[in-house]
Amino acid sequence: MTAYTATVTVRLKRGVLDPEAETTQQALERLGFELSDLRAADQFEVDLEAADADEAADRAAEMAERLLANPTIHDYDVAVADA
Amino acid sequence: MTAYTATVTVRLKRGVLDPEAETTQQALERLGFELSDLRAADQFEVDLEAADADEAADRAAEMAERLLANPTIHDYDVAVADA
Repeated sequence: MTAYTATVTVRLKRGVLDPEAETTQQALERLGFELSDLRAADQFEVDLEAADADEAADRAAEMAERLLANPTIHDYDVAVADA
Repeated sequence: MTAYTATVTVRLKRGVLDPEAETTQQALERLGFELSDLRAADQFEVDLEAADADEAADRAAEMAERLLANPTIHDYDVAVADA
């Protein structure tokens, strides 16, 4: 078994309203920053032991499906690196 | 001016308690997943126009310093890609 870090990034699907991101963008604009868009996402870095990187990615994807992401409103992606 | 997407990832510094991450880890364990640690981070994807990638990174870092991150408890990093 090898130690891996799986990074799960959970984003709102396109078209789902994100008032937090909108507020953050407006606050940056009030500070004088120019930006065309801002999207917020949640990132989970999961340390786990697995036989290989594929198994680590599969388990992290299952965590996303079952708990970390809500499939109705979220997309997610998984990246795995050696810990 | 070119369109870039700057990704700002804001993490709690080591040693800062993160009850949300702890609760998420416990919930995954209750579902039967085995993991050694879980850390949560906020990610902001900022679309902006800049002369080059370095300028885009500098402006995104300034956004992190001034609003997106709290330097007392957060570290952040910035990655820039063509939009």
